Amino acid sequence: MSAQRRTGLGTNQEAVRRHNLGTLLRHVHAAGQLSRAELTTLMGLNRSTIAGLVGELEALGVAEHASPSGSARQGAGRPSAGVRIADAGPFVIAVDLGVDKAVVARVGLGGRIHRRAQAPVVGGGEAWQVGASVASLIRTVVEDAPAASPLVGIGISVPGLVRRSDGLVRLAPNLEWHDVSFGGIVLAALGLDVPVSLGNDADLGALAEHTRGACVGVDDLIYVSGNVGVGAGVIIGGHLLRGYGGYAGEVGHLRFNPTGRPCHCGNRGCWETEVGAHAIAEAIHCPPDRVAQLDEVLADFGKPSPELRTTGTALGHGLASIVNTFNPQTVVLGGYFTSLYQLVSTEVSRGLADLALPAPLESVTLTLPGLGGDSPLLGAAEIALEPLLVDPVAALDAALDDVHARVAMKAG
Amino acid sequence: MSAQRRTGLGTNQEAVRRHNLGTLLRHVHAAGQLSRAELTTLMGLNRSTIAGLVGELEALGVAEHASPSGSARQGAGRPSAGVRIADAGPFVIAVDLGVDKAVVARVGLGGRIHRRAQAPVVGGGEAWQVGASVASLIRTVVEDAPAASPLVGIGISVPGLVRRSDGLVRLAPNLEWHDVSFGGIVLAALGLDVPVSLGNDADLGALAEHTRGACVGVDDLIYVSGNVGVGAGVIIGGHLLRGYGGYAGEVGHLRFNPTGRPCHCGNRGCWETEVGAHAIAEAIHCPPDRVAQLDEVLADFGKPSPELRTTGTALGHGLASIVNTFNPQTVVLGGYFTSLYQLVSTEVSRGLADLALPAPLESVTLTLPGLGGDSPLLGAAEIALEPLLVDPVAALDAALDDVHARVAMKAG
Ligand SMILES: [Zn+2]
Ligand SMILES: [Zn+2]
Repeated sequence: MSAQRRTGLGTNQEAVRRHNLGTLLRHVHAAGQLSRAELTTLMGLNRSTIAGLVGELEALGVAEHASPSGSARQGAGRPSAGVRIADAGPFVIAVDLGVDKAVVARVGLGGRIHRRAQAPVVGGGEAWQVGASVASLIRTVVEDAPAASPLVGIGISVPGLVRRSDGLVRLAPNLEWHDVSFGGIVLAALGLDVPVSLGNDADLGALAEHTRGACVGVDDLIYVSGNVGVGAGVIIGGHLLRGYGGYAGEVGHLRFNPTGRPCHCGNRGCWETEVGAHAIAEAIHCPPDRVAQLDEVLADFGKPSPELRTTGTALGHGLASIVNTFNPQTVVLGGYFTSLYQLVSTEVSRGLADLALPAPLESVTLTLPGLGGDSPLLGAAEIALEPLLVDPVAALDAALDDVHARVAMKAG
Repeated sequence: MSAQRRTGLGTNQEAVRRHNLGTLLRHVHAAGQLSRAELTTLMGLNRSTIAGLVGELEALGVAEHASPSGSARQGAGRPSAGVRIADAGPFVIAVDLGVDKAVVARVGLGGRIHRRAQAPVVGGGEAWQVGASVASLIRTVVEDAPAASPLVGIGISVPGLVRRSDGLVRLAPNLEWHDVSFGGIVLAALGLDVPVSLGNDADLGALAEHTRGACVGVDDLIYVSGNVGVGAGVIIGGHLLRGYGGYAGEVGHLRFNPTGRPCHCGNRGCWETEVGAHAIAEAIHCPPDRVAQLDEVLADFGKPSPELRTTGTALGHGLASIVNTFNPQTVVLGGYFTSLYQLVSTEVSRGLADLALPAPLESVTLTLPGLGGDSPLLGAAEIALEPLLVDPVAALDAALDDVHARVAMKAG
């Protein structure tokens, strides 16, 4: 009956209303809390339209009333009522699949991590084993979700090449995966049928840093992910650069030292062979079996050795190619590059300055992730939340309401 | 009176009308000629609205009636009347400033080159001398323009880094220019005050190939410009990748051979030192003073020598970095790379295949410019025409109507 009446409004009017509903939710999702006055300004709609949209979001259970905050006071007028993300609203599952461990979180609107769990990933393990392990982590984080909260979808960050058309993992070299339908494997292991989205870890790191990290308001940024492999997530002009198939940003295979070490790609001396986790480990004489704990080893590191300084210079030299190619405003150093930069920032900056062209160099800033190691995880949450921010009504219609019953059934 | 009545319609309605007018003109500009039925489909507006817009464009002198073409016949109905670019409509001046010569053309809507002229550029010459020479070429191509045709603006392609905010030429290494306001210099030499837009030659090559060259309908493409310097124009997701300051695409300085020849950027063995005009000239034993005629020398070249094959392989190896970084659908080989590819395509393709990752490699095509050597020139015309395609009324208000009187006065 209600659906019929809506259809009666005419497709165009209904589409505009749903679009506005999503856009309003996107603003609250980004800011956490906004006054109605702020929303009126942000959306260019009048107060009564905003009030109607807010009321509908409240009825959908995604937003709730908030006391006016300081920033909501409008000059001499009375403070404007506020709206914020509902505490027990819809949620998504975010998965950050690393080469050595998987992190899973239950994440709500506003990027709020309600619960997280992690488990080691065995290198070279079969995809179905990793899928089973991820499914078990998902059960753990879903366990104490409010009974009324619907599950909107699952987002998965993968250290590899993900096909944009269908999320197929074309290549995850350090997991030794080729053409793996990991989204399907996780759903099968869970026994659930919910929307699942996959993305490259560096792309998702860039998205999260742009939405709520170090690069809010910065529209030309690169998130460089330094792990066993090296990749870049590129946002230029506010848009994620995906490339035709979804594989853009494979800067780890930029030619760096043609007489260097062989790389899994078949080339020699790719940039990642000089600055990836194994190169860093070698520079600090970290035993190969401790590469997974490289962050802790780097944190305990005292005065940087000459070898580590050389690695820092190589990081800067490679960043120069990236800066010349993309002319970003900000480069975010993610993964192990965060710890590496903290130790040898002088060498990194000097390496960059030595080889970058003056024009793109003058405006670029190197920075650390605002979300620490969680950027890819929160980026995975963002792609899973996306349908909710495009059309909340449709996304909630498609969401899974009885997640406890369904997940518990399979977990037994 | 008419302006007042227009204002009376209300800003929003007037803005929509002007936007529609520009969009319709953009469609005709891209296609050359379209039936009213085709426009109705393309724009999603009804026939009477289309007829009104077409009438207004005809009154503005930018479009004219065309007999129905074959493609305009709509099933069993009567053929739909057509619209095409007006013969004596507005025009722009396009300038392709090369390292050794300047090409200037009078270009109309539809990318039609009405007249062209060229002159040598002396390497290391002062910018004002080059500006005077370009101004003289502009007078030549304007000379026989129809008296009623207004000059909308000037677009200039520059082999260097152009600041997006104001068109300042930050660096044109092979002209030895730093921070040159070349647009202002040309206007001063002409004694005219018309809108002038500058762009990087590879960016403009990409724009032109996307609009009316080899990449119509292709939204992820790279135009690689092989001249004395090497650069890339990158269109991803249909948008030109400009970067924060406008300097994106400097792939000529990708690290290629760290022990190679010194590059003007301060680095050693940048890609352009191995594949730029001087490297090609050396590979074919072309005397340095004939580098400007490299195209002719390459055209006369018979069986490629081993050195030239090596240069072809180096071109392919560098393209692999570009393909891994951007994942384009098409790579257009512009400048001297056109002739080079015709001679050693096997080596280029093999070099690319050897080093590119399989996923981005599988969908990429190498191709030659659909516009031959004119891509940067026609791209310069596109940026000069852009205001006319955004708001024809405003652009024609700002255009120069008495170009003959004004240019002749100064030419004496
Ligand atoms: Zn490699
Ligand atoms: Zn260089």
